[in-house]
Amino acid sequence: MKIGIIGTGAVGGYYGALLVHHGFEVHFLLHSDFDAVRRYGLYVESKNGDMHLPTVNAYGDPADMPPCDIVIIALKTTENDHLKTILPEVVKADGIVLTLQNGFGVEKDLSRIVPGATVMGGLCFLCSNKVGPGHIKHLDYGSIRLGQYSRDETSAGITSALKDTADILGRASIAVHMTDNLGKARWEKLVWNIPFNGLSVVLNANTQDLISSSPARSLVHEIMLEVLRGARACGYDIADEFADKMLTATQKMVAYSPSMRLDYDAGRALEINKIYRRPVNAAKSAGLKMKRARMLIYQLEYLDPARQGAA
Amino acid sequence: MKIGIIGTGAVGGYYGALLVHHGFEVHFLLHSDFDAVRRYGLYVESKNGDMHLPTVNAYGDPADMPPCDIVIIALKTTENDHLKTILPEVVKADGIVLTLQNGFGVEKDLSRIVPGATVMGGLCFLCSNKVGPGHIKHLDYGSIRLGQYSRDETSAGITSALKDTADILGRASIAVHMTDNLGKARWEKLVWNIPFNGLSVVLNANTQDLISSSPARSLVHEIMLEVLRGARACGYDIADEFADKMLTATQKMVAYSPSMRLDYDAGRALEINKIYRRPVNAAKSAGLKMKRARMLIYQLEYLDPARQGAA
Repeated sequence: MKIGIIGTGAVGGYYGALLVHHGFEVHFLLHSDFDAVRRYGLYVESKNGDMHLPTVNAYGDPADMPPCDIVIIALKTTENDHLKTILPEVVKADGIVLTLQNGFGVEKDLSRIVPGATVMGGLCFLCSNKVGPGHIKHLDYGSIRLGQYSRDETSAGITSALKDTADILGRASIAVHMTDNLGKARWEKLVWNIPFNGLSVVLNANTQDLISSSPARSLVHEIMLEVLRGARACGYDIADEFADKMLTATQKMVAYSPSMRLDYDAGRALEINKIYRRPVNAAKSAGLKMKRARMLIYQLEYLDPARQGAA
Repeated sequence: MKIGIIGTGAVGGYYGALLVHHGFEVHFLLHSDFDAVRRYGLYVESKNGDMHLPTVNAYGDPADMPPCDIVIIALKTTENDHLKTILPEVVKADGIVLTLQNGFGVEKDLSRIVPGATVMGGLCFLCSNKVGPGHIKHLDYGSIRLGQYSRDETSAGITSALKDTADILGRASIAVHMTDNLGKARWEKLVWNIPFNGLSVVLNANTQDLISSSPARSLVHEIMLEVLRGARACGYDIADEFADKMLTATQKMVAYSPSMRLDYDAGRALEINKIYRRPVNAAKSAGLKMKRARMLIYQLEYLDPARQGAA
């Protein structure tokens, strides 16, 4: 069985290294780090033990990769335009495509690109940063909430393909929690992502800065409640107590810079579309205006290095 | 006739210097710049001609000042607690108190401190910064919209006291426009102040940065429309076109850092209370939630040097 990793950064590099480390055949597609990884391999510093893989199957061109049974997508969603050409090259016709990306509506895009494949989404609860070419620093956590996409956007249930995939990840020491309702799980993730990613950029703050300040915490909480109203408008009933649970969990986490903050600091384009515009537009179509999230969109668009660079 | 200036910064220093320059007897109350101004006087660089006043009547203690016929208040509103002790010392019992401060509800506070005085508000359309002790740089504009406060919060009309005050300011080359409805004029000023002051801090931007960016301009416009809804909830009917007028006027202005941005850069407390909390609370009491302004309050509270210093 062959596993492909598309995007070998903080997320793809970490999980890919775990899979290699546990004996799986993994093929990595890289872009900017291709030369470094082909020469020096992958190096993952982790609180669970460092992993140094001196040689890995590294590719700069998807046409050189073998067709894979499972393809894990860990690109920034701002790069997703490339998937139209990459995926048909690397996924077996009846293979599995698992996106570990943030955001909203990604699985639907994937199912259009590779209609024969089984599409899954994985929501990572992971604190990991890329600190250099092929060099990843895993700070904490690492579990994945895994669900199967259903083309009619209802619950796909716990399928045998989902169980098999969970089993493979589990054999690589990855804690997997299966969900029968990926759409709901996506909204639950947005409850955290929408306030913390955006505010970490706009207020130049990490999670602890925000959670330990009374006004920032109140704002995070109000935005979370707004996201929950958005979820309900879209048919996913999540109770308001979920926001309190997220706040408490974040308070217990190590101080962490969300990925959007790291992107901003590194001058990379921000994932505004998948994390913000799509859910805000979905809620709007369902009759709910997410005014606070909309305001964050404007602020992030103003600050987006992609825009500033273009200006 | 004696004129007192409370707070000799970008606003009080500029108008006070104009009054001295045109022959009026002016008494300046100072705090941090007292020594410098007593020694070297006031220096105003202005596009209309520089003014150097080598000696001015400078005071560090209000008890040393003579009772004045007109007292002009140009403190930051974050210092307004001091007015309870200052004003009774410096205003004649039947004198005039004119506040040139930003914000909301200031005249009501003043009328309680000096119940015998006539209270007026002046809304300055002025680009002026303090660049050093007793050293003011006047960039552009300088007109004042002048209205009289009425204790029942309705229109006070164009009174003879208002006309006399306008006449005095006019003789010092200050363009004065009288308004019969100070409450409405205050809300009109907030239409500009609420978006531009807050966003200039949160997004680290000047007026031109904001107005020339499509997302920031859209956000400014949405916030302006929200302020207009707040004004209408409070009984002041201002048409939505007023927002477009403000945007166009700002586009034609020189690039300008609003006072809150300068306060932030200098590590001074932000005027969140008078510019934001009071109007937002007034609108809320009248049944309208200003969600965008409320979100700016949270963001500004997080960034407020006063809070950061206290933390």
